[in-house]
Amino acid sequence: MRLKNGIHTETGWEVAEHAFDPTQLVTTGSNFLIGNGYLGYRGTLVEWEADRYTACIVSDTYDKAEQHRELCNVPNGLFTRLSANGEMLSVFNGETEDYTRRLDLRSGLYCRSQTWRGKLGNAVQLETERFASYDNLHILAMRYRFQVEDTIKVVILTGIDGSVWSLNGEHFKSYEPSVRGGLLLLETVTGEFGIQIDVAGGLTVLGSQPQMTEIVKSRQRILRRLYFHLEAGQHVILEKAVAICTSNDVARPRERAEAMVHAALEAGYQTLKADHQARWDAIWEVKDVQIQGDLEDQTLTRFNLYHNIIATPTHARLPIGARGLSCQVYQGAAFWDQEIFNLPMFVYTRPEVARNILAYRHDTLDGARSKAKRLGYYGAFYAWTSGKTGEELFPDFFFTNVLTGRRIRNHFNDWQIHISPDIVYAIWQYYIATGDWDFVVDYGAEITFEVAQFLVSHVYFKKDKNRYEFIRLLGPDEYHENVDNNAFTNYQAQSAMQTALTIYEAMHERAPRALQSLFRQLGLSEDDVANWQDMADLIYLPQPGPKSLLIEQFDGYFDLEDVRPGDLLERLLDPEEYWGWPNGVAVRTQVLKQADVLQLFALHPDRFSTEVMRANYDYYEPRTEHGSSLSPSVHALIASMVGYQEESYAYFKKAATLDLYNASEKVWSGGSFLGGIHTAACGAVWQMVVKGFAGLSIDEHGIRFAPALPARWKGLCFKLVIHGNRLTVRLTSEEATIESAAENEAPLTVSIGERTMILSPGRREKVST
Amino acid sequence: MRLKNGIHTETGWEVAEHAFDPTQLVTTGSNFLIGNGYLGYRGTLVEWEADRYTACIVSDTYDKAEQHRELCNVPNGLFTRLSANGEMLSVFNGETEDYTRRLDLRSGLYCRSQTWRGKLGNAVQLETERFASYDNLHILAMRYRFQVEDTIKVVILTGIDGSVWSLNGEHFKSYEPSVRGGLLLLETVTGEFGIQIDVAGGLTVLGSQPQMTEIVKSRQRILRRLYFHLEAGQHVILEKAVAICTSNDVARPRERAEAMVHAALEAGYQTLKADHQARWDAIWEVKDVQIQGDLEDQTLTRFNLYHNIIATPTHARLPIGARGLSCQVYQGAAFWDQEIFNLPMFVYTRPEVARNILAYRHDTLDGARSKAKRLGYYGAFYAWTSGKTGEELFPDFFFTNVLTGRRIRNHFNDWQIHISPDIVYAIWQYYIATGDWDFVVDYGAEITFEVAQFLVSHVYFKKDKNRYEFIRLLGPDEYHENVDNNAFTNYQAQSAMQTALTIYEAMHERAPRALQSLFRQLGLSEDDVANWQDMADLIYLPQPGPKSLLIEQFDGYFDLEDVRPGDLLERLLDPEEYWGWPNGVAVRTQVLKQADVLQLFALHPDRFSTEVMRANYDYYEPRTEHGSSLSPSVHALIASMVGYQEESYAYFKKAATLDLYNASEKVWSGGSFLGGIHTAACGAVWQMVVKGFAGLSIDEHGIRFAPALPARWKGLCFKLVIHGNRLTVRLTSEEATIESAAENEAPLTVSIGERTMILSPGRREKVST
Repeated sequence: MRLKNGIHTETGWEVAEHAFDPTQLVTTGSNFLIGNGYLGYRGTLVEWEADRYTACIVSDTYDKAEQHRELCNVPNGLFTRLSANGEMLSVFNGETEDYTRRLDLRSGLYCRSQTWRGKLGNAVQLETERFASYDNLHILAMRYRFQVEDTIKVVILTGIDGSVWSLNGEHFKSYEPSVRGGLLLLETVTGEFGIQIDVAGGLTVLGSQPQMTEIVKSRQRILRRLYFHLEAGQHVILEKAVAICTSNDVARPRERAEAMVHAALEAGYQTLKADHQARWDAIWEVKDVQIQGDLEDQTLTRFNLYHNIIATPTHARLPIGARGLSCQVYQGAAFWDQEIFNLPMFVYTRPEVARNILAYRHDTLDGARSKAKRLGYYGAFYAWTSGKTGEELFPDFFFTNVLTGRRIRNHFNDWQIHISPDIVYAIWQYYIATGDWDFVVDYGAEITFEVAQFLVSHVYFKKDKNRYEFIRLLGPDEYHENVDNNAFTNYQAQSAMQTALTIYEAMHERAPRALQSLFRQLGLSEDDVANWQDMADLIYLPQPGPKSLLIEQFDGYFDLEDVRPGDLLERLLDPEEYWGWPNGVAVRTQVLKQADVLQLFALHPDRFSTEVMRANYDYYEPRTEHGSSLSPSVHALIASMVGYQEESYAYFKKAATLDLYNASEKVWSGGSFLGGIHTAACGAVWQMVVKGFAGLSIDEHGIRFAPALPARWKGLCFKLVIHGNRLTVRLTSEEATIESAAENEAPLTVSIGERTMILSPGRREKVST
Repeated sequence: MRLKNGIHTETGWEVAEHAFDPTQLVTTGSNFLIGNGYLGYRGTLVEWEADRYTACIVSDTYDKAEQHRELCNVPNGLFTRLSANGEMLSVFNGETEDYTRRLDLRSGLYCRSQTWRGKLGNAVQLETERFASYDNLHILAMRYRFQVEDTIKVVILTGIDGSVWSLNGEHFKSYEPSVRGGLLLLETVTGEFGIQIDVAGGLTVLGSQPQMTEIVKSRQRILRRLYFHLEAGQHVILEKAVAICTSNDVARPRERAEAMVHAALEAGYQTLKADHQARWDAIWEVKDVQIQGDLEDQTLTRFNLYHNIIATPTHARLPIGARGLSCQVYQGAAFWDQEIFNLPMFVYTRPEVARNILAYRHDTLDGARSKAKRLGYYGAFYAWTSGKTGEELFPDFFFTNVLTGRRIRNHFNDWQIHISPDIVYAIWQYYIATGDWDFVVDYGAEITFEVAQFLVSHVYFKKDKNRYEFIRLLGPDEYHENVDNNAFTNYQAQSAMQTALTIYEAMHERAPRALQSLFRQLGLSEDDVANWQDMADLIYLPQPGPKSLLIEQFDGYFDLEDVRPGDLLERLLDPEEYWGWPNGVAVRTQVLKQADVLQLFALHPDRFSTEVMRANYDYYEPRTEHGSSLSPSVHALIASMVGYQEESYAYFKKAATLDLYNASEKVWSGGSFLGGIHTAACGAVWQMVVKGFAGLSIDEHGIRFAPALPARWKGLCFKLVIHGNRLTVRLTSEEATIESAAENEAPLTVSIGERTMILSPGRREKVST
């Protein structure tokens, strides 16, 4: 089936292109990414180098190049180049036929095949396949098979190539290429922290064997050159195993990498692949979302789930990057996206993964504390851009005024305070879904109390209005900086204060000694709890207008110039101009990057009536530019909640196709590179389907569904894990079937529309909807 | 004596240029200004038109052209152009000899003389003189005498010319030229408010009479053309009387203007001049500052006093423009300059003038109230730029990013809140100097209470720090917007709260019924007074560092990049770039436009030790760019207070020569025209001399002097009026002589250094210093 942007699928389990489009090097490199939460290897062609965005991004390698501390791209262990009678196989020269690049989503397998005919007439048929192992996260494996049509000389250059894309400059102060025990090894050391990174590679040649092999070594390369004299019809198979280890994740990384390659070679490619596929089977077993009746939507959904999965570290407490491991943009670091967009899918299907990521926020408390202190506050002010340690990675200057070349002091890192309460929100959502009280006691309480303290240190009290106000904010709508009482931020802050009080009271009851110890450690007292209560009671929460029902996004928003995004396009002096602070075209208008009030509804739907949500949707939607990849999914969610099914579906489509159809288009903005996989939008696809179309909501009283499937969908099926119990949900336009797994431990209270049922383990209920 | 910038003086009572410099059209037009507080007529040549900045600015004619509501330039009633045998007399063609343009400061007389020889060899000797009458403020009078060397035909074109400079576009929707009762009349009506402005002109010809006279009339001109056949040596004298009346200041302005011209013609030029001079004699009688030993400083001082005098309305309660009546820049409106820089000279010499100006702030309370309300506050938030009504005249967009052409949203009008407490400060200073309790009851109390209320509505309370803070400010240092706890603003706010409490208590005692009535009118209660007290007690006042003694200009200032103004020059991409908000070169550095902490010392010297003042002077002085004309004088004052006599004198010189020597140079900045007379710097000259070098300070306990004359000065003499009593102060480096006028009513307590004396009326005391 032909989808858009040159993408095809047959089964809904894969995406493939059948023609190479050189204008989409950045996009396809990201879309065909393979990865496993430890590393990401871009979906580029294996003969390419840095200039075509080849990269293998490895987690936990934060190191500074120029002004950005970011993940490193390590040397490319899969580099393989074929020459036929001296002419290089390439999609850029000669003739390419039967070209396919395919990503098998079910197994995380990248496949490429093509028949290539050089200018001298030499034809080579190539088939190659690779994966980033989920069985051993350090392993990249590749099978490279080629066959010749005529008798020719073929030279293969394969090994480890240091020429990889690095967004912000060189990270390595040294490259040490060597051959050790039959393996190639390229060891690098980062410039800032001296992280040692070892890439080891081994090779097995099957089929016709080379006449001669030699080692080619230069400053940042260690390669084998294999000379073949092949008769017509002969083929060669190269099976490569590469291991990547760093001193940040293992002791003696060189030796470990070498041992892993030896083991991999011994096991052989097919075994590695089978072990890898078994892991993916287990992942999809609980994570797959099946859509009947629309193969495109099925494919889009799985494509997005796939990318959210491979972006998420499971091996260590590390952040989910805003671009995952698809490139170095946003430094491979976490934003609020992590808690609000990426995590919910894990919270409700693989809570142990979500727990890991939330615990990472506990690991980074000291970073958040020191950021708070540096900016004149106390408690935990989480980094806007958070790497391993939680120190603030977002640079003061991110965008550039493309008209003057002057850098812009962007205030993402000091004014966008909602990141802290957002984390508390996610912790509480996790607790509601899992009942994981130990997590609350061991991690959640400290984070929450410290965030509460930060909010106390930030807030101002207006005595004459008897209310607390938050001043000088940047909400999710980043086009409007330096605003007061941003509705989203104020509600989130109040929610965090309430969570702090709830946790305090629960611990007082259930874990008094842990509470006492934590209070002592944090220097907290009953006075602080009284402050939290006072704030929770008196934070100013912008209310819906009595007639309009509108909630003002921030103080004075409604007084801004009321124009539409299209009007602003005409005011641009340069298409790459940044629209926001301090003097972009949107700043003094009502045009939004994303709609904070809708985002507020998405997190607190129970606090607002459908009428209020609808009125605000009607107002904010036409004023929203969707300059953020987070925006369309929130519109899909709220549109679904207020009964705008067609609009909701249109926004679902927009969000789900952002990367695959290259629909965001904004690879550059304000002089900054913004390409890569938008992992938040990926995570949001799950939310749009499960929270939007299936209408899932969970609170202390149980699980509710309010299904409203897109008209073209015949059925929807997904799984949930709630308090450790697995549910299978099957929806059609007429009925809902809910099944509680036999191995569940407790009965579950499930409501569908008006109907509430108690579902015992092993039971299945069908309800008309 | 030759001064700088081509300026000469002989007596210290005049400034003159003896060569015409076409590069200084803007500057000399301002420097040679004549005026009387009602109107200003630029010191341009009388044959010029709009393109050479000819202008007659009239007070109380605020009307909008494009985005600026500003004073109007009315038609030029003195326009006179001479042709000799068809060739126009001009400094731009032919040969000019014996050229002089002179401003007689003692009488406000503008004189120009030159001998001109055209290309055809026709020589004309010209002498002309003009003044803006202080006897009848509506009258401009001119004497225009010329004599020919050869027999030639001379044509004079004279009358009323509407071709005048208008900074921001056309103000008039109609021009109606006519001849009525022998007078020329040009009536215009403004476009926004329909203000009727009548310029009537009459002419007397003495000496040789014209052969023929005709009227020349076009859309915006009404002129007489006079044809002369003159023999060698013959001369002609034109005596012109022009009256300007507007419907904002008189009923039936046309008839009034005509009547004034008839009366003026009847009286004759010499009588008009004598009456005018008598008025100036009275002004200088109390205002003159005599400096012995340095003719340049004497001249500079009088030049600045002169311009502060003619900028100041005495006929009505109107603002003193930041550029006086020298041009339309800053809209002919008042800034904080008025209270802090222009007024003190009047407070201590002609308090009735100061009272008038302060009462103007009472007239504009409603404007300040409505501004407060519009921005979400209450009480009185005075306009940053205040015309007649007190509505905010400062446009949202003042500067332009000259690199992009995009306008800059300058926050002078909403974040620079210190204007309100500054007015309260001036009121209290006036009361201290005059004892004018009626003013306090009738005007001062209401202003002060409303300012206190505004401050209550603006301030935030930090509960965790138990203090009030002011957030999002712009201090006098306008390069740093959006700052918190600007030291100057916070101290001024506290001072205003204290004044409100002092007035409240005094009225409670002395005028309880007036207080009650005012409280009722303003809706105030004891609760509000309690709020004032709470704020006065708990406003955060940045303190000197325990070791450094430094006061931080605002929160976080010391963390900014520590560079010097010279360093920033190298960062400019365009010399006309605006240095400030939001992205100018100074914004993220410690480089200041002016030093707020020194300004704070200037207003509250008693609150800080000399050591603190010196440490801060040492720190801030090298970081100050003096981008404001207010800056050098404050440096002079504080340098004098901390004993840096040479630096003080150097800054005095800088401030006093700003306009005369064209030392400011910044005629344009950020795309905005900034030329004209810097009246605040003019007013500051009085303060530098009297408060700085003579060391005057006055409080409830008496009058003090701490003289420290510049080394080169032999003597200094000035007068003061304190509580209605006149003092003459004569200082030399060795001794001080203070004389209490015989007509004084009360003994005065005067301290000089350590010595305190009671000075009875008529007594003179001499003290060694």
